[in-house]
Amino acid sequence: MSEAIHQERARLLISCPDRPGIVRAVSTFLHQEEANIVQSDQYSTDPKGGMFFMRVVFDFPSEQKIEALRTAFEQVGVQFGMHWRMTLAAEKKRMAIFVSKEDHCLLELLWRHKNGELNVDIPVVVSNHESLRSTVESYGLSFYHIPVQKERKREAEQQAVEVLHAHNVDVVVLARYMQILSPEFVESFPNQIINIHHSFLPAFIGANPYKKAFERGVKLIGATAHYVTDDLDEGPIIEQDVLRVNHRHSAEDLRVAGRNVEKISLARAVEWHVDDKVLVFGNKTVVFN
Amino acid sequence: MSEAIHQERARLLISCPDRPGIVRAVSTFLHQEEANIVQSDQYSTDPKGGMFFMRVVFDFPSEQKIEALRTAFEQVGVQFGMHWRMTLAAEKKRMAIFVSKEDHCLLELLWRHKNGELNVDIPVVVSNHESLRSTVESYGLSFYHIPVQKERKREAEQQAVEVLHAHNVDVVVLARYMQILSPEFVESFPNQIINIHHSFLPAFIGANPYKKAFERGVKLIGATAHYVTDDLDEGPIIEQDVLRVNHRHSAEDLRVAGRNVEKISLARAVEWHVDDKVLVFGNKTVVFN
Amino acid sequence: MSEAIHQERARLLISCPDRPGIVRAVSTFLHQEEANIVQSDQYSTDPKGGMFFMRVVFDFPSEQKIEALRTAFEQVGVQFGMHWRMTLAAEKKRMAIFVSKEDHCLLELLWRHKNGELNVDIPVVVSNHESLRSTVESYGLSFYHIPVQKERKREAEQQAVEVLHAHNVDVVVLARYMQILSPEFVESFPNQIINIHHSFLPAFIGANPYKKAFERGVKLIGATAHYVTDDLDEGPIIEQDVLRVNHRHSAEDLRVAGRNVEKISLARAVEWHVDDKVLVFGNKTVVFN
Amino acid sequence: MSEAIHQERARLLISCPDRPGIVRAVSTFLHQEEANIVQSDQYSTDPKGGMFFMRVVFDFPSEQKIEALRTAFEQVGVQFGMHWRMTLAAEKKRMAIFVSKEDHCLLELLWRHKNGELNVDIPVVVSNHESLRSTVESYGLSFYHIPVQKERKREAEQQAVEVLHAHNVDVVVLARYMQILSPEFVESFPNQIINIHHSFLPAFIGANPYKKAFERGVKLIGATAHYVTDDLDEGPIIEQDVLRVNHRHSAEDLRVAGRNVEKISLARAVEWHVDDKVLVFGNKTVVFN
Repeated sequence: MSEAIHQERARLLISCPDRPGIVRAVSTFLHQEEANIVQSDQYSTDPKGGMFFMRVVFDFPSEQKIEALRTAFEQVGVQFGMHWRMTLAAEKKRMAIFVSKEDHCLLELLWRHKNGELNVDIPVVVSNHESLRSTVESYGLSFYHIPVQKERKREAEQQAVEVLHAHNVDVVVLARYMQILSPEFVESFPNQIINIHHSFLPAFIGANPYKKAFERGVKLIGATAHYVTDDLDEGPIIEQDVLRVNHRHSAEDLRVAGRNVEKISLARAVEWHVDDKVLVFGNKTVVFN
Repeated sequence: MSEAIHQERARLLISCPDRPGIVRAVSTFLHQEEANIVQSDQYSTDPKGGMFFMRVVFDFPSEQKIEALRTAFEQVGVQFGMHWRMTLAAEKKRMAIFVSKEDHCLLELLWRHKNGELNVDIPVVVSNHESLRSTVESYGLSFYHIPVQKERKREAEQQAVEVLHAHNVDVVVLARYMQILSPEFVESFPNQIINIHHSFLPAFIGANPYKKAFERGVKLIGATAHYVTDDLDEGPIIEQDVLRVNHRHSAEDLRVAGRNVEKISLARAVEWHVDDKVLVFGNKTVVFN
Repeated sequence: MSEAIHQERARLLISCPDRPGIVRAVSTFLHQEEANIVQSDQYSTDPKGGMFFMRVVFDFPSEQKIEALRTAFEQVGVQFGMHWRMTLAAEKKRMAIFVSKEDHCLLELLWRHKNGELNVDIPVVVSNHESLRSTVESYGLSFYHIPVQKERKREAEQQAVEVLHAHNVDVVVLARYMQILSPEFVESFPNQIINIHHSFLPAFIGANPYKKAFERGVKLIGATAHYVTDDLDEGPIIEQDVLRVNHRHSAEDLRVAGRNVEKISLARAVEWHVDDKVLVFGNKTVVFN
Repeated sequence: MSEAIHQERARLLISCPDRPGIVRAVSTFLHQEEANIVQSDQYSTDPKGGMFFMRVVFDFPSEQKIEALRTAFEQVGVQFGMHWRMTLAAEKKRMAIFVSKEDHCLLELLWRHKNGELNVDIPVVVSNHESLRSTVESYGLSFYHIPVQKERKREAEQQAVEVLHAHNVDVVVLARYMQILSPEFVESFPNQIINIHHSFLPAFIGANPYKKAFERGVKLIGATAHYVTDDLDEGPIIEQDVLRVNHRHSAEDLRVAGRNVEKISLARAVEWHVDDKVLVFGNKTVVFN
């Protein structure tokens, strides 16, 4: 244990080409900075010429500054060609939630947040409808109504971007938000927009997945939490789960039963994202959970 | 209880347009024939104008003959426009298993059969390779090698049909049989050919589903047991199951892990089919399990 | 289909010794009353001398009265020694929810109720703490605070009974209510009190199941919804579910993760109970879901 | 990447009191020995004064010898008070399987072994019955029949120990072996004997768990793979899984359905053990899977 009585906790996330010496370099660096590794996960797609991913949680003396640590680490990062980021665990991300009319995913997130299960700030909830205003405000959160009319989608989206910037948002969760975002919007939050799709992707891409699932006669229904990219329902998958159904379920029954899988899958994905446990790699994720 | 000391068990399966009086007619018929209902399941897609499905298991005095019961029931069947069949539980179906080189599904079926878990006879196992002959023969079963050469598929299939007819086969299980069957073959065993597809259909239709699942970065892999129709991987689904995976799984790891889901899902579907628990309805199944 | 344009839906639940003719008698009765069977489930522990259970959902002409149907059915009930009840689907049960401080199970029930997923009225929520008053009242429901002091438990319980009677309550849900009820209380609501125990019973009976699960090093944690009897945690089980955990989970992590399984399992059990899908038989349940 | 063209793969497993510098020391050691870390997992019960666990897979130049690496690592081990072991991945453990009459767990292991899924040698299968001899021998493995008579249990066990030593066995799997082992036997294979218990422990400890599960009316049945200790069914749990059941399942149905969970859970536990992925810690396991 470090002699320092006061410590701060930080996380270091690394992606780089794999080669010998990375773990040694990182652990030597942390040791020199009197930091103590609390948890460490790593994954290599292929030890010979593949990609290397690492997540280290460490405590460091609080008289030290995170900015100084970052500066000091730059040399290691350059040496190994790393993409890396170092964040303070206490410095919460700022998350906006987008909803339409269905409230189950929203409520699951708000309830977990209130209970201290989600390590994040929620400066704003945005909706294209007014209907969930009182729910959101009852949790002491700001609700922002941005109607989305067909012929004025661009303006609505521009307004949303302004709200997000005004609140310094760095992660957006689409909690059953029934609008497709423009490529410009998606690009301004790369791998920072999480959507919940109400099917076990890649089955039933697009609209009305429960109706399609009903028509296909599947015996399990699912939900998929994924990062949003330009390709609809094709972004990197963070989490999926399923639920057993049978011939007695109508399309509407599937929709109702599916809510449970949707809200739990989305909440897990959000938890991992805000705790910096997800690394994106091509169109896939490495989840250190 | 009927006074008869010796009884036989039979199953009655019914599909017909729903209307009042069906259950009464069936139960009155059975009561008049001194049969005792052991189990009964029914399902209606819509009580007003939908389809009605029923499965009744009953015991009847063994001095009575099943043929006579069938004849007597015809009147009820006509009255309600039923598709129906009545089978003796003791009269096992005759099942052929088709395999290529992978043995996990075959072994699961053979082992359950040997243990008395599958209520079926297995007169023959057919393969396009010789490699599983000794395995099959060690279970005391007949193995039939029918090579499938590209330019002689029709002849091979014709040979297979002859083998099936010679063994009075009424159900065919494709236990990872890597050949596509012709429409003629499929038509001669309508809803009597069960295939195991190594994905959670309709995701990853076609060849190499594990490779596709790996590339898509899914967090669950699955397997689907379904009846074979002319549309590849589009037939009525009998059973599906999934298994959690993560970024550490290579495509090959998925293939290996997936075997467990494949064999268990297929074995369940076969068990339900041979126990007359599956009714097909359009492109879906009603499974009374 | 009956000619009646206006119909009402009812449910008939039956338990009796098994013997031939029951299904015929019930279906003949319903047919004579111009009722149309919408759904029917039955189960027999043993066709020779066992117990028989049946649940029938039927539509009947609304000019007919349910009271008249009940009177008419009495003869059938007597003939077969049935325990039976006949209820109108539209006549909702009246459910009280008891809570302490944890709100996850309460919120799941309130949210499903608001969304029309639970076919029940909730005239009152009772708690031994004030803390959830505003939550309950925000759903437009009555909140009743009954403090439970150690030396005055009897009085508190008496007060609770009065509240329940004043609100004509016929089902009580203990949604993480951390008080043990007296035998007198339990007896006055036989098989009408549903509790959620935060373990996979019969593992970890009694207090602190998550701590015990942590100490035992289990790889799955669970929850059990059951009817309350005099034997603590020993009543008939309605529903159970589990969640995978690993060595990284602290006892507190188990407690947090377990909430999801608790709330979902309890909500399912409540749904089945209020829809008259659960029959109690000795210390077990038959669930027709 | 190391310049060496020929490499060998090894695993290092470490348990020790947590303190700063462990990861650095291990990674520096491996770097100096020109070894390349392929995979690394670590877990700390508490970064301040808890226990630290680590599993490192690494490749090293094959002109180097594992014995030399072990000698060199001793210094690090002493410095941090480590329990550690270093094994060659290519040096397979030697596993004996004990069975009685039920074959499902045995067959699952033999089949996975034959398919190259289990990285282990199986020099001998021991049974107190003759019935599975031909099965075992058909896999080309040695079968050893040691009858266990009530009054001669000690002699039988002594004979078993001799067989194990004669075959240099270092892991014993009880694949539904229905005999209790003596403390002396257990002590001679500490945390090297894996048992499959046919319940979700700690529920239904002892004999006849499926009968007990049936009588309790549970809605899920399970299986538990654990290390054997002197306390029956109380050893460290490696893996557990469950299966949904309902009121239609008889005690015998539970037994039959349970076989699937038993064999899959045991096979997973064995796979992890032989790949050195399991560390025992008090009465718990850390599984780096």
